[in-house]
Amino acid sequence: MMTHPRLMSIPMRLRAFASSASAPKWEGGVSMVQGASRGIGLEFVRQLLEKNEKGHVIATCRDPAKATMLLELKNRFAERLNVLPLDVTVESTIEESARSITERYGSLNLLINASGILSIPGVLQPETTLTKVQKSSMMLAYEVNAVGPILVIKHMWPLLRVGGGLGTERDVAVVANVSARVGSIGDNRLGGWHSYRSSKAALNQLTKTISVEFGRKKDPVACILLHPGTVDTDLSRPFQRNVPAEKLFTKEFSVQKLLNIINNTKQQDNGKFFAWDGQEIPW
Amino acid sequence: MMTHPRLMSIPMRLRAFASSASAPKWEGGVSMVQGASRGIGLEFVRQLLEKNEKGHVIATCRDPAKATMLLELKNRFAERLNVLPLDVTVESTIEESARSITERYGSLNLLINASGILSIPGVLQPETTLTKVQKSSMMLAYEVNAVGPILVIKHMWPLLRVGGGLGTERDVAVVANVSARVGSIGDNRLGGWHSYRSSKAALNQLTKTISVEFGRKKDPVACILLHPGTVDTDLSRPFQRNVPAEKLFTKEFSVQKLLNIINNTKQQDNGKFFAWDGQEIPW
Ligand SMILES: NC(=O)c1ccc[n+]([C@@H]2O[C@H](COP(=O)([O-])OP(=O)(O)OC[C@H]3O[C@@H](n4cnc5c(N)ncnc54)[C@H](OP(=O)(O)O)[C@@H]3O)[C@@H](O)[C@H]2O)c1
Ligand SMILES: NC(=O)c1ccc[n+]([C@@H]2O[C@H](COP(=O)([O-])OP(=O)(O)OC[C@H]3O[C@@H](n4cnc5c(N)ncnc54)[C@H](OP(=O)(O)O)[C@@H]3O)[C@@H](O)[C@H]2O)c1
Repeated sequence: MMTHPRLMSIPMRLRAFASSASAPKWEGGVSMVQGASRGIGLEFVRQLLEKNEKGHVIATCRDPAKATMLLELKNRFAERLNVLPLDVTVESTIEESARSITERYGSLNLLINASGILSIPGVLQPETTLTKVQKSSMMLAYEVNAVGPILVIKHMWPLLRVGGGLGTERDVAVVANVSARVGSIGDNRLGGWHSYRSSKAALNQLTKTISVEFGRKKDPVACILLHPGTVDTDLSRPFQRNVPAEKLFTKEFSVQKLLNIINNTKQQDNGKFFAWDGQEIPW
Repeated sequence: MMTHPRLMSIPMRLRAFASSASAPKWEGGVSMVQGASRGIGLEFVRQLLEKNEKGHVIATCRDPAKATMLLELKNRFAERLNVLPLDVTVESTIEESARSITERYGSLNLLINASGILSIPGVLQPETTLTKVQKSSMMLAYEVNAVGPILVIKHMWPLLRVGGGLGTERDVAVVANVSARVGSIGDNRLGGWHSYRSSKAALNQLTKTISVEFGRKKDPVACILLHPGTVDTDLSRPFQRNVPAEKLFTKEFSVQKLLNIINNTKQQDNGKFFAWDGQEIPW
């Protein structure tokens, strides 16, 4: 959709001016989905490619060779999809991805951090009581769910600053960190899941902290937190028993709602925490 | 202060009944201060001993032999002060303390987690920008500031359940975790200090999670979070330059205020986050 120059905001017009000199290299924009082998991340990749004929997507995951569903998308979308290896617990793989994206694209308009862990058989089990809290589980959940996404943002920040909203319908580049309602402290009525809850609360605080810096530097980047609802994926499968059917969403439905939020993100949404339906969630 | 039985709540009367059979073994109560070598923790130990002639205090720190100020208190208060080694990053030292307290006292009425780190020269430096965020610093702050206190509560829980308010003027045992206003996500206007802020937000979420379980089990234990204000200690020293004189508190003042909150804690305060002046802090 083209906007008439008179309807454009001033920063939009400035960028349009800059880009009239050199039209955006990536019409349709460049999006990165981190944690794209399965579940919500994989669905983000699919919808981003299907809904935007010109968009380019970089999908990262720990082991691309094993990400069969993602490789199927690669067959379908060829040049518009670029798959890279990235494990959030290994910072060198994040740096390597940033280098590769810099060379090939030079900019990013969207970064979705979708990776996350709740349970890993034999390693991490959501705690039902304080007596079951283990240091190793807490440290692992924090490393993957809180530190990981932040390191990804750290290394992609220069690319997002270059990209801003260029080539998209937005004024800003967006960083969307997939959090969870159970990370909300104010909304914590049930207790339990100590490792997961605290790692997501930490992710929320880190995202807020980063948003303050983006805002102060007047970067064309807005950082938001998203709660996808309870979504039918490997992550929620062991815990779906008590979820009423109408509250268990398909990946398709949840990601459609979340993309709607992302596409409508404005500078003033920087630092906010949204549920799938657009409602803000208390900290 | 003795309460007339007719003015007592039912749980209070039940406990009074239990204790009429066997009067509280530790009149004046048993308090544990974790992180007592210096700063706010050390001051808690001093005031607890000075203000309550009959109270017993267990003070823990990483290296008792080097905690000269604490050892001076030991000389002054002799049997009423028990110093034990405890490093929150080494769970076996927490278990060893719990064993020792179980043998000698058999109960606890108060646990103050005062330990915490903000900067360690050459190891941990509060981040001024996202580009300075280091994985190792984030993990360390989380380990000491969030996981550490939670493991201490895990191992002291049985002692706190036995203790409740017995021998004190309260209805409940209290767990007071020293957090910080900068851990508040809603109140985060300045950004920076990523490691410290997120570790305290995680501590807040963990404390809230634990409080839900204590509440559900109807344990005679209330768990609260405290912000001491900006207090003149080693921790704040490198960052005091921009603090107006009237906003930089002495340890004496801050701890007096915090003890006032602790002494007045009731079951319904379980899970709340208080500043030194008794105001609640948003999450
Ligand atoms: N499903 C829900 O109901 C729900 C509710 C609230 C929030 N969420 C959040 O939504 C996000 C996506 O969850 P999901 O339901 O799609 O879960 P999922 O199906 O289990 O997928 C998790 C994804 O995270 C990746 N991952 C795990 N560890 C990683 C690491 N060290 N480095 C990079 N990637 C890693 C996995 O990759 P591998 O294939 O390599 O393991 C996988 O792609 C998570 O942040 C989750 O916390 C989900
Ligand atoms: N001062 C302030 O303005 C301020 C403001 C808000 C919140 N706080 C919080 O108040 C609490 C006390 O801070 P403070 O100002 O008194 O700081 P401090 O003077 O630096 O004292 C910190 C204490 O934590 C202990 N500690 C550090 N690592 C430990 C570990 N691994 N295991 C056990 N103990 C450990 C230290 O013991 P060693 O002597 O062995 O190092 C020391 O006793 C902290 O939680 C802090 O975050 C302080």
